[in-house]
Amino acid sequence: MADGGEGTLDAILTAVGDAGRRHSVCVRGAGGGAIHADYGLLASPDGPTALLEAAQIVGITDPAGMAAPVGTRTTRGMGELVRALLDQRVRRFMIGLGGSSTNDGGAGMLIALGLSLLDADGREIAPGPDGLAALVRVDASTLDPRLAECSLTIMSDVDNPLAGVRGATAIFGAQKGVLKEEQRRFDDAIAHFAELAEGATGRRAADSPGAGAAGGLGFALQWLGGTFHSGAEVVAGLIGLDAALADADWAITGEGRSDAQTLLRKAPFVVAEHARRHAVPVSLISGAIDPDALPELGKHFAGCFALPNGPATLDECLANAADLLADRAEQIARLLIAARPR
Amino acid sequence: MADGGEGTLDAILTAVGDAGRRHSVCVRGAGGGAIHADYGLLASPDGPTALLEAAQIVGITDPAGMAAPVGTRTTRGMGELVRALLDQRVRRFMIGLGGSSTNDGGAGMLIALGLSLLDADGREIAPGPDGLAALVRVDASTLDPRLAECSLTIMSDVDNPLAGVRGATAIFGAQKGVLKEEQRRFDDAIAHFAELAEGATGRRAADSPGAGAAGGLGFALQWLGGTFHSGAEVVAGLIGLDAALADADWAITGEGRSDAQTLLRKAPFVVAEHARRHAVPVSLISGAIDPDALPELGKHFAGCFALPNGPATLDECLANAADLLADRAEQIARLLIAARPR
Repeated sequence: MADGGEGTLDAILTAVGDAGRRHSVCVRGAGGGAIHADYGLLASPDGPTALLEAAQIVGITDPAGMAAPVGTRTTRGMGELVRALLDQRVRRFMIGLGGSSTNDGGAGMLIALGLSLLDADGREIAPGPDGLAALVRVDASTLDPRLAECSLTIMSDVDNPLAGVRGATAIFGAQKGVLKEEQRRFDDAIAHFAELAEGATGRRAADSPGAGAAGGLGFALQWLGGTFHSGAEVVAGLIGLDAALADADWAITGEGRSDAQTLLRKAPFVVAEHARRHAVPVSLISGAIDPDALPELGKHFAGCFALPNGPATLDECLANAADLLADRAEQIARLLIAARPR
Repeated sequence: MADGGEGTLDAILTAVGDAGRRHSVCVRGAGGGAIHADYGLLASPDGPTALLEAAQIVGITDPAGMAAPVGTRTTRGMGELVRALLDQRVRRFMIGLGGSSTNDGGAGMLIALGLSLLDADGREIAPGPDGLAALVRVDASTLDPRLAECSLTIMSDVDNPLAGVRGATAIFGAQKGVLKEEQRRFDDAIAHFAELAEGATGRRAADSPGAGAAGGLGFALQWLGGTFHSGAEVVAGLIGLDAALADADWAITGEGRSDAQTLLRKAPFVVAEHARRHAVPVSLISGAIDPDALPELGKHFAGCFALPNGPATLDECLANAADLLADRAEQIARLLIAARPR
């Protein structure tokens, strides 16, 4: 399972097998340097669907991107990849958002797709939140016309609007390195950009749920006509979760850390909802479980278990995650086998 | 459950309820200073049975005892308590060994019970391993005559002999602070003591299984006529483990750390053996579980689970042990309830 963020590509490509293909491309990362990014192409009767994951290009785990000041990071590489795929006649896109280091409202992607963002002198601005402050005019007439033929499916697990107290900068800025004193300026800059962009075409998107996903990529994609979906639900559909559950005695799901947020329809919660419809119990294995959330988690999961097999540091758990996951799953299975009616 | 070591008194007194009573006494600890120690008195048709736990008196968790050099630590307090109970007409003793800081072969206890350990000048020696080197004569005629009327049940989870490569000093000395260069001297001293003691009465005990328990208390008690038992088996009997299992759907047991040693008939293993006889599955919750032992543990336990609910230090786990245990048990129960046929 995945939720649109990091790992979405792997989860889907693993599940669809021969129906999907992994490709690699070289585009600009969030910091401006070249980065190798993977994407997928899924075969379908209506032509290929490209499967993009923002975390592959502007991921918060990319040290080069994180080394650049957040005010200069852009999503340009996302636009470069979309454009390259347009050249390959791809017109269907599924784009997973989440785990990004950028906070540019998706301006970088739109510039790469031809949108003109101009300053008072009619010159192209720099696309990061720093540059957006100089924006005075948006010209959508230069936008790549092939985008009008495209279907864009946005996969995300957050429903935040673009700006304001629940916006991208206020809620997700700090983890990307936005300083408290920059927050207002960045929030104003992307709100200003969105207002001009919306004015240029009449299409509103800044207040749509998920506009604040991936530093505002959610806005830019919806402004382009993309439709916003729960990443976990889309992934569940693509990997055939319901078909698997129809045949299952038990489900095991998990995430890095489970807490009260898990109940806000994160991937494990979506698995639990689907499993309940099939009357399949579902157990949770996570790297860590907030004990305060256990009473509530207990209403949805038939047993919540953490990875460590004793006192251990986070680094130790990360280094041994695969073995620990296998161990925990085995122990749950042993318990289940013993609990079965004999 | 318990195995004769720390916690044995609590486990038994909790289980027997009104049939047992907790008492407190002031005796000498391993370091020679006064220490408050608990013991139990169990009612029985043949008169009271005293329940003693070596860890209460010469425990490795007593900072004052551990602060004294191991060469001077003695089990004198054990003898003082036995003597006080003899004065109260107690003639039945169950003595739990394990978790001791002493390495005196039980000489201290025997001196407190009247045994004369004399040096070349006919003077009493100091009873720690340091003092035993000066021993030249053992006089058993001064031993408290009431001991001959006593039944002594020894509870331990180790079957090591008193001395030699598998003896008390070689195997358990290091954790008590015996230095590598002292090991030979201490081992020789208690072997020498045992030889003279055995010669004085003709009763052999140094090579008996468990003679090396609690720094040689296992020897001294067997030399007095005590019978050696698996601590976990005796505790299982006293707490009514089989009766509880006869009525149970599931058993949960555990210990501080589970590893390959667990399979050497430690308390959880004994619980698993009893549970198997009643066809009751048993799950393990331990503070930590050695992943290398999981394949073997998996043959005996229906699921092995560790305490931490995420990355955590040993101190954090210890401080929250009760809550963590309750959480883990609840999650196992949730899984079991979901697994039950509906």
